[in-house]
Amino acid sequence: MSSSVSPLAPQHVPELPEIAGVRLATGAAGIKYRDRTDVLFALFDKGTTVAGVLTRSKCPSAPVEWCRAKLKAGKARALVVNSGNANAFTGKTGREAVALTAKLASAAAGCKPTEIFLASTGVIGEPLPAQRFEGVMDRLAQDAAPGRFHDAAQAIMTTDTFAKVATAQVRLGDATVTINGIAKGAGMIAPDMATMLSFVFTDAPIAAPALQAMVSAQVVDTFNAVTIDGDTSTSDTLLVFATGAATGAPKITKPNDPKLKAFRAALGQVLANLSEQIARDGEGARKLVEVVVEGAVSKKSARRIALSIANSPLVKTAIAGEDANWGRVVMAVGKAGEPADRDKLSIWFGDTRVAHKGARDPAYDETVVSNYMKSPEISLKVSLGMGKARDRILTCDLTKEYVAINGDYRS
Amino acid sequence: MSSSVSPLAPQHVPELPEIAGVRLATGAAGIKYRDRTDVLFALFDKGTTVAGVLTRSKCPSAPVEWCRAKLKAGKARALVVNSGNANAFTGKTGREAVALTAKLASAAAGCKPTEIFLASTGVIGEPLPAQRFEGVMDRLAQDAAPGRFHDAAQAIMTTDTFAKVATAQVRLGDATVTINGIAKGAGMIAPDMATMLSFVFTDAPIAAPALQAMVSAQVVDTFNAVTIDGDTSTSDTLLVFATGAATGAPKITKPNDPKLKAFRAALGQVLANLSEQIARDGEGARKLVEVVVEGAVSKKSARRIALSIANSPLVKTAIAGEDANWGRVVMAVGKAGEPADRDKLSIWFGDTRVAHKGARDPAYDETVVSNYMKSPEISLKVSLGMGKARDRILTCDLTKEYVAINGDYRS
Repeated sequence: MSSSVSPLAPQHVPELPEIAGVRLATGAAGIKYRDRTDVLFALFDKGTTVAGVLTRSKCPSAPVEWCRAKLKAGKARALVVNSGNANAFTGKTGREAVALTAKLASAAAGCKPTEIFLASTGVIGEPLPAQRFEGVMDRLAQDAAPGRFHDAAQAIMTTDTFAKVATAQVRLGDATVTINGIAKGAGMIAPDMATMLSFVFTDAPIAAPALQAMVSAQVVDTFNAVTIDGDTSTSDTLLVFATGAATGAPKITKPNDPKLKAFRAALGQVLANLSEQIARDGEGARKLVEVVVEGAVSKKSARRIALSIANSPLVKTAIAGEDANWGRVVMAVGKAGEPADRDKLSIWFGDTRVAHKGARDPAYDETVVSNYMKSPEISLKVSLGMGKARDRILTCDLTKEYVAINGDYRS
Repeated sequence: MSSSVSPLAPQHVPELPEIAGVRLATGAAGIKYRDRTDVLFALFDKGTTVAGVLTRSKCPSAPVEWCRAKLKAGKARALVVNSGNANAFTGKTGREAVALTAKLASAAAGCKPTEIFLASTGVIGEPLPAQRFEGVMDRLAQDAAPGRFHDAAQAIMTTDTFAKVATAQVRLGDATVTINGIAKGAGMIAPDMATMLSFVFTDAPIAAPALQAMVSAQVVDTFNAVTIDGDTSTSDTLLVFATGAATGAPKITKPNDPKLKAFRAALGQVLANLSEQIARDGEGARKLVEVVVEGAVSKKSARRIALSIANSPLVKTAIAGEDANWGRVVMAVGKAGEPADRDKLSIWFGDTRVAHKGARDPAYDETVVSNYMKSPEISLKVSLGMGKARDRILTCDLTKEYVAINGDYRS
């Protein structure tokens, strides 16, 4: 567990306003951690819709399977999240723990178990002692109150060094609606999808299918465009809850409703903000790295090449060492297996073009680039010269601290 | 650069006998290193055939492109290898450096430039000052003598901590033939193909197409079944030279000639031995890791899953930390995207089954596994229960030393 806050943590942490129809409470069930909160209970007013994107892992956690099934109905009355134990690869016990948690939560929230959404994060393979939630759920339901999004973000942390929150307010019809998001990340972060856990809440009245269409489109360039170590969690979960409680806001049923324009942009910004914070808090991260690939034959091809660079241990360790080792970028482009032509390739670190048309740029000044590599945010651009498609991936450097954190995480 | 020898280095280093038709010399051209040899010149008798496998990188080095073109004719009279500079992503200058090196070498060896094979390893993107070979080639051609395979293995090292050699003698018809191999590895090692550089020499008389068929088949489970960091070099080269100078050996022209049986097995052992040594000398490696996947629907599927495990930074750091974190193995199986069913999955560390049918094995004794994790060689087996295919990948752990080595390799 990291003790100090990532140097890349946002300088400014916004205040998150209340959201009509959402009440939150956090508590300590003692699942794994001592002396900290480890359960979040979020209660939603009747009529709340839900959309989500879940890990594409072939070995998903029990809560992921539960949410996948319940998302079809698109209705939510409560969310229970625990940290410290992922309830993944726990077999029948895991399914029973999920059912018990949903039962306890539904009794406390006064709704059906099928309207409860669940997420767990932490160690894989340990049985989750869900009976510890007994009593806790009732108490949290009584405590639940509007606001408290910071507390919620804190309760879901594992190796995160700071709580991740984002907020936006935007016009929907004649009303002002609010979007608040929280997330946790740290390690085992790679697309499909990349978030570990993120929960977004809004008072906008948006039907579940419209919400789902919007969220599915928006994860592509936000949560699915972040990678820390190329490893994909069994628990990745993004859920977006819309209470519809905003006074005077028009009900939205179609994803292409023109009234959604500003809301869509604001939701996209919240997701982008949270996913960037995940990169900023990658385990052991000392540098935020943006990888841009342009001139690819397709978006898919650009993404594969960008991920090949962003996941390359050699590129990431070079950046950790503040070394503008563009030869390793060439390697990563080459190994991606996508259309590329060495003799058309150009590479930039920041504003400096270091390689051009298949060779070192003769004009490039190593001193300028060396200074640039000392900055906490590094932008690396590859131009393939093959087509017009572009992609962007956020990642971080690979440091000795990553190895230290992950060499004794469980013990 | 590592200063101390990998603790996984082989205990016993074999003597390599002379090979009829092969003469070697090493020298110091001062390409990058000081006070060490950095050029290998191998001279072959007339009639020597050659086969090889080269990187599938889309951004291959200039020498790789040269070798790919020259392999078609299958004839070799000399091999020039330099360490310290990969002559990759060096554009027109790189092609000119290759042509100049071949010209100098062919003049010294008394053959055509097209009969010269070339390989370079080291930094990417720096122009190779091939004019430094002027004079050096002539001197090395005069010095060249039988034997000296250890010197050859030493001259091609970069971040390797020990020279890699292997040898076998075997009957071919009524004759005894010898196979000697050398290799260099260390980092930027992943299949397609995985070797960085390896050169194998034999006095067996085998036609180039037959040799090529045998080598192409054998790299699949040797050099292409090793990964250090999932990164694929622009320079990966395996070349096998057959002088045919063994007295009394029958000429082989067909890859399925039954007389090849023992030779094929011996060549396979040499390649397996060299590729294992590459895993043993992975940058910063403290543990040799064997990943076995069985019960897959196909060999290809088994390989993808084995590589997903072997390349997972979280699995590799856990092993570095001597933590039997099988939850991360579940994660790596899940992210591979191949057919797998959580509830049929079993996982072993050494002889201990830690997970069975989708959950922790109730019988598993953590003390036994914790002790096992302290050993320098770790075997990790996954049984998928989906089919009958199997695969095996060798890798090493991911340590702070890997990050240190690669954080300031170039500077």
